[in-house]
Amino acid sequence: MHTAVQSIGAHQPHASSVARVAIAGATGYAGQELLRLLARHPLVTITAAMSSGAPGVNGAERRLPALARLWRGDITPLASDTLVREADVVFLALPDAAAAELAPGLVDAGVRVVDLSGAFRLRDAAVRARWYPETHRLPDGVAYGLTELERAAVARARLVANPGCYPTATLLALAPLVAAGLIAPGSDIIVDAKSGVSGAGKTPSERTHFSECHGSVSAYGVFNHRHGAEIEQGVGGPVTFVPHLVPLDRGLLATIYVRLQPDATSGGRGEAAVAEIYERAYADATFVRLNGSALPEIKHVAHTNFCDIGWRVDPSGRAVLVSAIDNLVKGAAGQAVQNMNVMLGLDERTGLL
Amino acid sequence: MHTAVQSIGAHQPHASSVARVAIAGATGYAGQELLRLLARHPLVTITAAMSSGAPGVNGAERRLPALARLWRGDITPLASDTLVREADVVFLALPDAAAAELAPGLVDAGVRVVDLSGAFRLRDAAVRARWYPETHRLPDGVAYGLTELERAAVARARLVANPGCYPTATLLALAPLVAAGLIAPGSDIIVDAKSGVSGAGKTPSERTHFSECHGSVSAYGVFNHRHGAEIEQGVGGPVTFVPHLVPLDRGLLATIYVRLQPDATSGGRGEAAVAEIYERAYADATFVRLNGSALPEIKHVAHTNFCDIGWRVDPSGRAVLVSAIDNLVKGAAGQAVQNMNVMLGLDERTGLL
Amino acid sequence: MHTAVQSIGAHQPHASSVARVAIAGATGYAGQELLRLLARHPLVTITAAMSSGAPGVNGAERRLPALARLWRGDITPLASDTLVREADVVFLALPDAAAAELAPGLVDAGVRVVDLSGAFRLRDAAVRARWYPETHRLPDGVAYGLTELERAAVARARLVANPGCYPTATLLALAPLVAAGLIAPGSDIIVDAKSGVSGAGKTPSERTHFSECHGSVSAYGVFNHRHGAEIEQGVGGPVTFVPHLVPLDRGLLATIYVRLQPDATSGGRGEAAVAEIYERAYADATFVRLNGSALPEIKHVAHTNFCDIGWRVDPSGRAVLVSAIDNLVKGAAGQAVQNMNVMLGLDERTGLL
Amino acid sequence: MHTAVQSIGAHQPHASSVARVAIAGATGYAGQELLRLLARHPLVTITAAMSSGAPGVNGAERRLPALARLWRGDITPLASDTLVREADVVFLALPDAAAAELAPGLVDAGVRVVDLSGAFRLRDAAVRARWYPETHRLPDGVAYGLTELERAAVARARLVANPGCYPTATLLALAPLVAAGLIAPGSDIIVDAKSGVSGAGKTPSERTHFSECHGSVSAYGVFNHRHGAEIEQGVGGPVTFVPHLVPLDRGLLATIYVRLQPDATSGGRGEAAVAEIYERAYADATFVRLNGSALPEIKHVAHTNFCDIGWRVDPSGRAVLVSAIDNLVKGAAGQAVQNMNVMLGLDERTGLL
Repeated sequence: MHTAVQSIGAHQPHASSVARVAIAGATGYAGQELLRLLARHPLVTITAAMSSGAPGVNGAERRLPALARLWRGDITPLASDTLVREADVVFLALPDAAAAELAPGLVDAGVRVVDLSGAFRLRDAAVRARWYPETHRLPDGVAYGLTELERAAVARARLVANPGCYPTATLLALAPLVAAGLIAPGSDIIVDAKSGVSGAGKTPSERTHFSECHGSVSAYGVFNHRHGAEIEQGVGGPVTFVPHLVPLDRGLLATIYVRLQPDATSGGRGEAAVAEIYERAYADATFVRLNGSALPEIKHVAHTNFCDIGWRVDPSGRAVLVSAIDNLVKGAAGQAVQNMNVMLGLDERTGLL
Repeated sequence: MHTAVQSIGAHQPHASSVARVAIAGATGYAGQELLRLLARHPLVTITAAMSSGAPGVNGAERRLPALARLWRGDITPLASDTLVREADVVFLALPDAAAAELAPGLVDAGVRVVDLSGAFRLRDAAVRARWYPETHRLPDGVAYGLTELERAAVARARLVANPGCYPTATLLALAPLVAAGLIAPGSDIIVDAKSGVSGAGKTPSERTHFSECHGSVSAYGVFNHRHGAEIEQGVGGPVTFVPHLVPLDRGLLATIYVRLQPDATSGGRGEAAVAEIYERAYADATFVRLNGSALPEIKHVAHTNFCDIGWRVDPSGRAVLVSAIDNLVKGAAGQAVQNMNVMLGLDERTGLL
Repeated sequence: MHTAVQSIGAHQPHASSVARVAIAGATGYAGQELLRLLARHPLVTITAAMSSGAPGVNGAERRLPALARLWRGDITPLASDTLVREADVVFLALPDAAAAELAPGLVDAGVRVVDLSGAFRLRDAAVRARWYPETHRLPDGVAYGLTELERAAVARARLVANPGCYPTATLLALAPLVAAGLIAPGSDIIVDAKSGVSGAGKTPSERTHFSECHGSVSAYGVFNHRHGAEIEQGVGGPVTFVPHLVPLDRGLLATIYVRLQPDATSGGRGEAAVAEIYERAYADATFVRLNGSALPEIKHVAHTNFCDIGWRVDPSGRAVLVSAIDNLVKGAAGQAVQNMNVMLGLDERTGLL
Repeated sequence: MHTAVQSIGAHQPHASSVARVAIAGATGYAGQELLRLLARHPLVTITAAMSSGAPGVNGAERRLPALARLWRGDITPLASDTLVREADVVFLALPDAAAAELAPGLVDAGVRVVDLSGAFRLRDAAVRARWYPETHRLPDGVAYGLTELERAAVARARLVANPGCYPTATLLALAPLVAAGLIAPGSDIIVDAKSGVSGAGKTPSERTHFSECHGSVSAYGVFNHRHGAEIEQGVGGPVTFVPHLVPLDRGLLATIYVRLQPDATSGGRGEAAVAEIYERAYADATFVRLNGSALPEIKHVAHTNFCDIGWRVDPSGRAVLVSAIDNLVKGAAGQAVQNMNVMLGLDERTGLL
């Protein structure tokens, strides 16, 4: 029963491959997660994995020991002409400014793009100019990639702006209630979110130094976080958004406070009213699991593409929604692959379960 | 320079001792912290440390190895007559029901009591009956021991009901603003709190099993937590309180969302208005540190009796208050010692810096 | 692009299924990991998942929220006749005594068994009687399931005794060097191992209470751990084995100290000598990754079936071997599936990459 | 009972102060711990706290929020003439090269120095030149500051080389057994040590990035760590030393493997033989706690100056010693204060219990 040592995802396309894919920014946390997911995806072939870091870097085995035997290939320097030549779909896991500069040209050259940066997420030009001043030009055919709520737009997009991790967890819980008109007029919308430290990226800093995070919790970015603008775009109004750093690696939990329409929640009917809306919105959404009053926990979604949502409503209409994701999967690389599946006309779950 | 091995806090009263103190419930987390603090307190002598656990238990060195050489004494079985005979002040770090039963008799016998349970925290009989049905009788002379705001009442009390950890962090931030009338009428008050796992006590359970907490965050007790009632008592109105378990041992951070009086916050004056109220309220409070817009973090208060408070207010009057404590010190044993100091007429900081 | 919500691994056998499998003890940590792996295995069908816990328990969604949508089925009470009737291969993830009692009957009834307990790991009757006195009868056809080194025996076994987590990491590093005669005669063999807390199982205890483990490291079981006997069986001589509990959930790192044959390591040739032996032993072993002098870390193997091995040898022949696995995957459920694959004549990697 | 807000440890010397002390390198982790300990020391006054970092930095409250109200003073730029003028004892918590350059001049100018760097720990010039090539000149009157074993030398020293964290834990366990001749001739001495991440200092790096440490354990510096040379100096022979990084902030546990003299350990007398030696060596050592066969754990020593030692010996003479300290207290700042106490003729425990 000899099983020769070999890797999955080598350069040769699978017989069954329907698309060639490339990753720009493959050594960051989202980039590595993309490599892991795409290497085992049965219907695509990784043709390039690039890093904008120091040149001289090739030899992924040495740089990415976790991926040895899962992916065989080299990390190469970023080269947009190679991306155009060798890939049908390009994932950008780059800093905002780099993505803002690179993406339009790729789209012009006919490549389809899934962009994990924030450069193209905000539709309103003035708002975008405030939060992403690096974004000078929008390519044609941009869709916001909150897959479950934007499938049709994603399917025909040239560039999918993959949502931020906080907006993903928050909007999957809030957007259906807003759309259904269940939020009371004038209700404050408050989002208190807790994220693992991998959300801050791979570049060392005092804030993400182990001894500064371990045993601590801190709020940051109050009234001043770009994901707040993205959440406000999604709900169409003002939101108080406060993210917190908690001492774990992967995962994000958003606790959301709103008041519901009194007539819809009287007599203790509030939780059922919320349930009905969610069940309709997510009837065909494998990756959204509805927990009802059993509130979600990060451990149940870590290392998966699921978003778990739970809720409680009191008789006076006060509602607490809790939403949990893995920030690197449903909040980044997993949703990016889900979007790619939709763009390619595949079952959106392919390679993700 | 030989220094014979010896312990601090042995049975012999210090020359300078002004009171004999005893601990009922000395092996739980709050009880151990009381032992640690009282053993090095320069003006009191520990005369008894009792546990309600299995009898046969004596030999604290074996049970409490962290305290070896810091405190020398035996853990003895709970015996109320010994408490009455040997102590001037008794700390109860017992389950609610045990404290509810034991405390009134101690007070009747002339002992002063600092009770770390919830049994006597709620003043309204109906509310208390709902949350603490075990409490059948209130002793005379009960004060609520949020020291900074209740010094006079604590000084003359026979029994101090030491506040819960969540209410301590929350009310130190909220109560001065409520008292000053700065909260906008009709504003929702939302408290999203994050606590280390030691707050759940020392009894093993699935919820506090290492592998269930590590790498996870979860909300619990939504619309149904006794500390919510205690916070509502403190602010005199309804509060939405959602506690969360975060993967660290000690520390608690409360993020509080309110709307302030529009006329007090217009023109960007909101943060200064909050600052002025806090500075007046805490002018003589060593243990409340005002951080302004530099928001507190758990690591700065861990293992201390400090409560750090920070705040942000936007031009529309939305305010975010952040308050951090060590749940076992300012949220339990430290505040209990602070209350004892006030009861005994000592500088409230004695033994706590 | 509607994708109806559905689960993978429902009761209907896949068209391609080659075997029906059942799990006894499906709610413990190893049992849950088995469910996760087997639910996505393309060539087997889960026909039963049983728990020896309280009866009344059915409704896995409620008990195992992490597995919702990944596996659809009920946890049922343990019933050996059902196992015999409905499964070709049964995984036992039970306490030692329960496995010792259940396994022989299953084998007699013609079912093949992968046992994750320790009941059948020790071959010598006297040694087994000391460490596993619950094991009264050995079934026929027992193999020790350290897959890479026992493939032929596993392939024909009726019962595979799946190795302990510590022995797996240790023996994959040590056994080839012992077999090749590279260890110096008379050399002490010292194994200092560090394990995540999930290795202690799911039953709450003081030792595995979050607040007791967080921020701490402790040694345990010195000269008195059953895995020490299993390691000694594997190397054929005495071993000093000291396991430690470290504050993480999943993963195990063994640091091994031996002296090598002086003539094989002189002139700085020691590391090459070790490399040559490993490369030969693991030429066809996808799941053993040889890191050379770049020592393994737990993070690179967490959530995978890999065992990473690194080594350093100094000119005097002192060698340090470092071996890392995920204790719940290669140290339990993953290796169990790997063994099942070998028993069924499948590629041993099926469902594991 | 008004208690004006004020700090402890302000610039004015206490009435009872016997010495003026200064810290060079006050913002690193050891430096902050020195500030914390010295600010509450009853018999010394902090006259300067300096940082070699960017100038412009003054306003410790902003840089060191954890110390607000515990110490009131400014962090000032490093200035050796000020140290000479304003301090009787200077603590150097600087990088090796900076300490190597600064210390001799301070000693020449009559200041007594406690140096927390490694620059002056190694006595043998050739060994020192290999590991600390930055050290060009040794001041007169250097003592190695493993307090319990070097009190007389420390008392008269001009410069105390404060031991490294790994050597402190290791040598307190090993040195008495070596001195008593209990180690078997030719026995290997193996030290497998596990340290919290604060031991790596405050400068952010990929290795100490939260997401790289959390959930992982790694070995490093095999056959090539400066603390190995320091341990070998302490035992007078070769030692195999392998440090590991474990995911906690503070604390260090060393597991030590040796063989004892057969005639001293036969008949199961090994543990008693070890106990007798330790009890004699540490009869007057408050900070060394002897646990016997109840092995130490990091949690029992965290935030204290204790070193806990436990041991097991089997009938064949194999011994496992386990030693635990807080790397920032007994492994750095606490032992430095203990050494200062000895230098000043004070009770060595002053300010440390």
